[in-house]
Amino acid sequence: MRNQQKTYLLFVSLLICTGIGAQEHPNLILTKSGVESIRKNLGTTSLFDSSLKTVQNAIDKEIASGIDVPIPKDYSGGYTHERHKRNFLAMQKAGVLFQILNDEKYAVYVRDMLFSYESLYKTLPLHPKERSYARGKLFWQCLNDSNWLVYTSQAYDCIYEFLSKKEREMLEKNLFQPFADFISVENPQFFNRVHNHSTWGNAAVGMIGLVMGDDELVDRALYGIKDANLKLYAKDNDGGFIKTEGKAGFLANLDEPFSPDGYYTEGPYYQRYAMYPFLIFAVGLHNARPELKIFEYKDSVLLKSVKTLINLSDKDGEFFPINDAQKGMSIFSRELTTAVDIAYHYGIKDPELLDIAQKQNRVLLDDSGMAVAKAISQGRAKPFLKKSVAYSDGPKGEKGGISVLRQQDLELVFKYTAQGLSHGHYDKLSFMLYEDGHEVIQDYGMARFVNIEQKGGGNYLKENKTWAKQSIAHNTLVVNETSHFDGKYELGSKYHSQRFFSKTSDDKVQVVSAKEGSAYPGVVMHRTVAMIQSKEFDKPMLLDVFKVNANKKNTYDFPIHFMGQVIQTNFEYAAPGTLETLGTKNGYQHLYLEASGISKKGNGKLTWMRNNQFYTWTSTTKEGDVFLFTRLGANDPEFNLRRDAGLILRRKESQNTLFVSVIEAHGEYSPVTELSSNSTSSILELAIELDTDMYTAISVKHKNGKRAILLLSNQDPSPETLHKQKINTKEHQWKGPCHFVDFKS
Amino acid sequence: MRNQQKTYLLFVSLLICTGIGAQEHPNLILTKSGVESIRKNLGTTSLFDSSLKTVQNAIDKEIASGIDVPIPKDYSGGYTHERHKRNFLAMQKAGVLFQILNDEKYAVYVRDMLFSYESLYKTLPLHPKERSYARGKLFWQCLNDSNWLVYTSQAYDCIYEFLSKKEREMLEKNLFQPFADFISVENPQFFNRVHNHSTWGNAAVGMIGLVMGDDELVDRALYGIKDANLKLYAKDNDGGFIKTEGKAGFLANLDEPFSPDGYYTEGPYYQRYAMYPFLIFAVGLHNARPELKIFEYKDSVLLKSVKTLINLSDKDGEFFPINDAQKGMSIFSRELTTAVDIAYHYGIKDPELLDIAQKQNRVLLDDSGMAVAKAISQGRAKPFLKKSVAYSDGPKGEKGGISVLRQQDLELVFKYTAQGLSHGHYDKLSFMLYEDGHEVIQDYGMARFVNIEQKGGGNYLKENKTWAKQSIAHNTLVVNETSHFDGKYELGSKYHSQRFFSKTSDDKVQVVSAKEGSAYPGVVMHRTVAMIQSKEFDKPMLLDVFKVNANKKNTYDFPIHFMGQVIQTNFEYAAPGTLETLGTKNGYQHLYLEASGISKKGNGKLTWMRNNQFYTWTSTTKEGDVFLFTRLGANDPEFNLRRDAGLILRRKESQNTLFVSVIEAHGEYSPVTELSSNSTSSILELAIELDTDMYTAISVKHKNGKRAILLLSNQDPSPETLHKQKINTKEHQWKGPCHFVDFKS
Repeated sequence: MRNQQKTYLLFVSLLICTGIGAQEHPNLILTKSGVESIRKNLGTTSLFDSSLKTVQNAIDKEIASGIDVPIPKDYSGGYTHERHKRNFLAMQKAGVLFQILNDEKYAVYVRDMLFSYESLYKTLPLHPKERSYARGKLFWQCLNDSNWLVYTSQAYDCIYEFLSKKEREMLEKNLFQPFADFISVENPQFFNRVHNHSTWGNAAVGMIGLVMGDDELVDRALYGIKDANLKLYAKDNDGGFIKTEGKAGFLANLDEPFSPDGYYTEGPYYQRYAMYPFLIFAVGLHNARPELKIFEYKDSVLLKSVKTLINLSDKDGEFFPINDAQKGMSIFSRELTTAVDIAYHYGIKDPELLDIAQKQNRVLLDDSGMAVAKAISQGRAKPFLKKSVAYSDGPKGEKGGISVLRQQDLELVFKYTAQGLSHGHYDKLSFMLYEDGHEVIQDYGMARFVNIEQKGGGNYLKENKTWAKQSIAHNTLVVNETSHFDGKYELGSKYHSQRFFSKTSDDKVQVVSAKEGSAYPGVVMHRTVAMIQSKEFDKPMLLDVFKVNANKKNTYDFPIHFMGQVIQTNFEYAAPGTLETLGTKNGYQHLYLEASGISKKGNGKLTWMRNNQFYTWTSTTKEGDVFLFTRLGANDPEFNLRRDAGLILRRKESQNTLFVSVIEAHGEYSPVTELSSNSTSSILELAIELDTDMYTAISVKHKNGKRAILLLSNQDPSPETLHKQKINTKEHQWKGPCHFVDFKS
Repeated sequence: MRNQQKTYLLFVSLLICTGIGAQEHPNLILTKSGVESIRKNLGTTSLFDSSLKTVQNAIDKEIASGIDVPIPKDYSGGYTHERHKRNFLAMQKAGVLFQILNDEKYAVYVRDMLFSYESLYKTLPLHPKERSYARGKLFWQCLNDSNWLVYTSQAYDCIYEFLSKKEREMLEKNLFQPFADFISVENPQFFNRVHNHSTWGNAAVGMIGLVMGDDELVDRALYGIKDANLKLYAKDNDGGFIKTEGKAGFLANLDEPFSPDGYYTEGPYYQRYAMYPFLIFAVGLHNARPELKIFEYKDSVLLKSVKTLINLSDKDGEFFPINDAQKGMSIFSRELTTAVDIAYHYGIKDPELLDIAQKQNRVLLDDSGMAVAKAISQGRAKPFLKKSVAYSDGPKGEKGGISVLRQQDLELVFKYTAQGLSHGHYDKLSFMLYEDGHEVIQDYGMARFVNIEQKGGGNYLKENKTWAKQSIAHNTLVVNETSHFDGKYELGSKYHSQRFFSKTSDDKVQVVSAKEGSAYPGVVMHRTVAMIQSKEFDKPMLLDVFKVNANKKNTYDFPIHFMGQVIQTNFEYAAPGTLETLGTKNGYQHLYLEASGISKKGNGKLTWMRNNQFYTWTSTTKEGDVFLFTRLGANDPEFNLRRDAGLILRRKESQNTLFVSVIEAHGEYSPVTELSSNSTSSILELAIELDTDMYTAISVKHKNGKRAILLLSNQDPSPETLHKQKINTKEHQWKGPCHFVDFKS
């Protein structure tokens, strides 16, 4: 029955596609004509030549060290896992070298390794490690098996014509077909989701299908398994939903998680991970199924998303750690080389992408890599200027979003997205702050040591759930010591924040405002962050206005996770002799209380030093507000968490309230000259001048006596509305939802 | 009477010196002929020209911003302190610019500022801040007043001939003479010590004396105040002795603290600080008192010490934090530019110093700077190769010393010096370990935020005494939870450790061994550290054999202050719910106990990760040994201490004992590729094969089954003695105090 269906589909394909019967190879990532062109251009660009040399040296070493295809046994970080990973990476590269250099030793290496896998795979039961909701065979999860097939299908394509027909039949019958079936029809809970896992699965099945000329596999990849019969609301081992209502397959994975701005709802770390299968399968489809016009799909979202992703990295090119994310992952990852080269070549030939490719200092060994190398050698690169951005989230851009405000070396990331699937954190309206690529106010990131086997097999640690995902681990409001949506994924997935307004076009006064009404029942949170360059300051100051409306009295915790060492506070505090935890759940069980103080009415100030730079956070306070200095690391018997600092401003028994803060980046120190400059705050007073349902106004008084005012409309985000308000006997008139009056006497 | 004496001395000087009556200016650092040569060579070397340009730009800005000579008020870090500091640095530079560029605006600037000081100084009482044992007038301590005069005397020399005779008389009478008297005869407790403070004071008085042609001042500088009548054992505000028996003055400060190897007993941080007055005054003496042959004094120790100092810096040029020391202070400080240029020009023209000067990327604007710039432009620089070194401490090299073992990117510093004056720590036989310029096992350094006013006025914090100086803050043995010499400076100053033997000539097997018999009554400590490159390991392994002989049972704490995050241990441990301090005094009151475990007999292992590198410490253990994970920060109400980790191996109720450890640097991780390599220890077993009064032998078993052996003679350090010992039925014969048998089956 299955074979009959396959034959029928092949017949249909013959009618609509040209030349598929006489399909020549390579035809997936490399093409026959592309290879000819590459060979002709060897020696003409230093970047392609050096990339080729690097790969050739690496693969020559691999070939010399011999083939090892061990029986699967380990989690990631362990030998068999890392070896199989190394194998598929090596096969893909060897295949490419065979095509470009026309040296059969590379084809022989791929062939021999493929037959090692052919003979192993037949014998394999499920992988012995049982943690995954979709266990693989070569690896502990289908996800990694899919990685293998995405790379290996490229290797197979490259040596397709080098193999005899009989060899191909053996490989396809005993290895590729059962492999593709295993990760799809035999694991629909893995294959049929809208999730980066499935994207890998879809691409793997589709790519081997394209090479084998098997349209049934390609269609399965594009549209998913028709009747997968999955239970709604079943969950994977990361706690993510396996099935949500709607479509499946590669196109569904393009439709759902990408916003029209190219923001990927899981965040940049996972976007980076998913970009490889997205783009590499897309190139295959572009070559073998040009009629799909895959790169134009959804207003060219695939190509657009590459630039979006780069804009979500800091000055050093490291991605902002949104949701579950490893700090340090960057534009220098191999996935981003792929993304940048493909986006350049198949897109609008954006010269800013060449700047990134130059920094990466390597290109893909294919048509796109050659195109990038040639363009760079012709001097077409232009600096990639990261500007302030406001990206929407949601398939139609309707589910909040994320903003990055940038001035000088400061970068403020403000998150008001949807949940972000199973890797999402409970961090509505949170922010993080960077200077010159260094964290000033951090987001913890994830609690995981990827591929470090000693730490839970390199997998997510339990502290990821008990700490990293919890609201208190972020720079946002926590009500009654519970996380947003009570830390419940089902609930969080139903809602999203809303951008209220965004104003990033004026370089000197950039403001973003967003609201969240679902994280806590009966509580509406409205945060406005502004990055403002005034002539009174060397660097921009950051204003943060967090308005809370509630239907009852609550305890509000307002944390900032500052990085570095305390230099000074303006409030008294006491440190206990022994350290106790701040709470028992929702992340609080991981925090030690290092010191606490009762605030007076007025302003609370904390100055700290990080990376020889000084920062001061000034916040309005009410009588009875409490400051809590925290230290991470309680209930962490395996030392899985970093011992990072935090300060919580706690306001008890409060209903509607307003938290207003200013952050100054204001001076520096040199351990070599031993000189400190501008090491104290310049702000004399921060005050709430007005706070009604309709308007909020705050003032900042500089130590030179001048005062600035920020006026906000709380209900009307229209840029056209005219507003009028009296502050301290002075009448202010302005248009639009916010108005900044610069410092004056 | 005083003036009569002065006249007499001048007369004597006239007899022995030539031309002092017709003394021309400049004659201190710059000379008339030197300036002519510099002017001629302008435009011929890029390094001198760029250095000149940088200084000129800075001083032009200073001149434009106007002169401010405020009434003294603040501690370091505060405005008046920093302003006066800026003033003297600017005057010195402006004077030099006047000479080189022959532009009178620079002379006018210096003149006007000098007269501002002239009119201010007459009116000044003691500085209002009272903390110092020798309060200054412009600054809170005479030390900083002396800094001012060392720089300002150079400025005065440069514009000497630009001033009228009457102007000079006014300045000398109202400013320089009383200034010099104030920091010397009026503050003998400051001036007449063997201490870096006095070196500054001596240089200040001597340099203004040379410019003024006042031989009485010069002699006072060189030989000290004759009858200072200081109380023996009085102390300064850092706890250092004010007077020890013996000589005073500049020459005494050369005799005492420098060892024949050029090691300065206070350590590199203070050597760097003292090098400026040492060398700049020496240049002045070289020019104005050539007959003293100051650079040849004590086997050219001044020039030799520059290279010693550079060798006491890590791969990035940052000085190892010996005793009180700010981490990050480096060869890039302005004092080291002075040191390197002067050592090159007045020394043997060492081409390796040119390499450092190139890295500094600036030169002095004087004869030595021009000489360096010319030599570099002629391509004479050679790489400065830091090798393993063993420097003696003590005026005659008789008071122990310090070794740095270096192989590949690893640097191990082993300290067995004398106390190191008042900035010394109680850290006999301690070590620190670096890889690629990063700390792996740290020495805390000092508890001080130099020139950051919010932190105790930028002065030493009380945690410097209660933590940083204590033995438990170092990587050495602590007996019965008390510091070496009971933390008593008087006691510590009487003793020093002894080098037992040192073997650094063999690149692959480097060993240093030292003994300490006075730190604890009735306890002899004998530590041997070895850096060994075996073919079984990618990087050298570090062996650490710490032998203890005691006259009674004690509790031994063996701490390692590892930097980074715990990855794995091989022992069970439990973490308490609340954190309590480990002790109540001697530094223990600053440590929280984060976790503890009871060891089994055999080996204890800790693997940690720092800067994406893996390290494992393996130690032999006895039944009942306890492991204590500590976290710094208890009893630190001002957040003055970093929250650093530590592990203590505690052995209770033990008399003679042996601690044996191996440290492996063994693998790496990339957050970009997410690959970890070689992340686990390769050592299967570490064992004590023999331990007698005469011999200790240990064996290291690799996981590949091979075993290596290190044999040590405990009593006879002679390199000629023949030894014979049977280990596991095998007879070993060797010559000298140590013998390494590489891994074999």
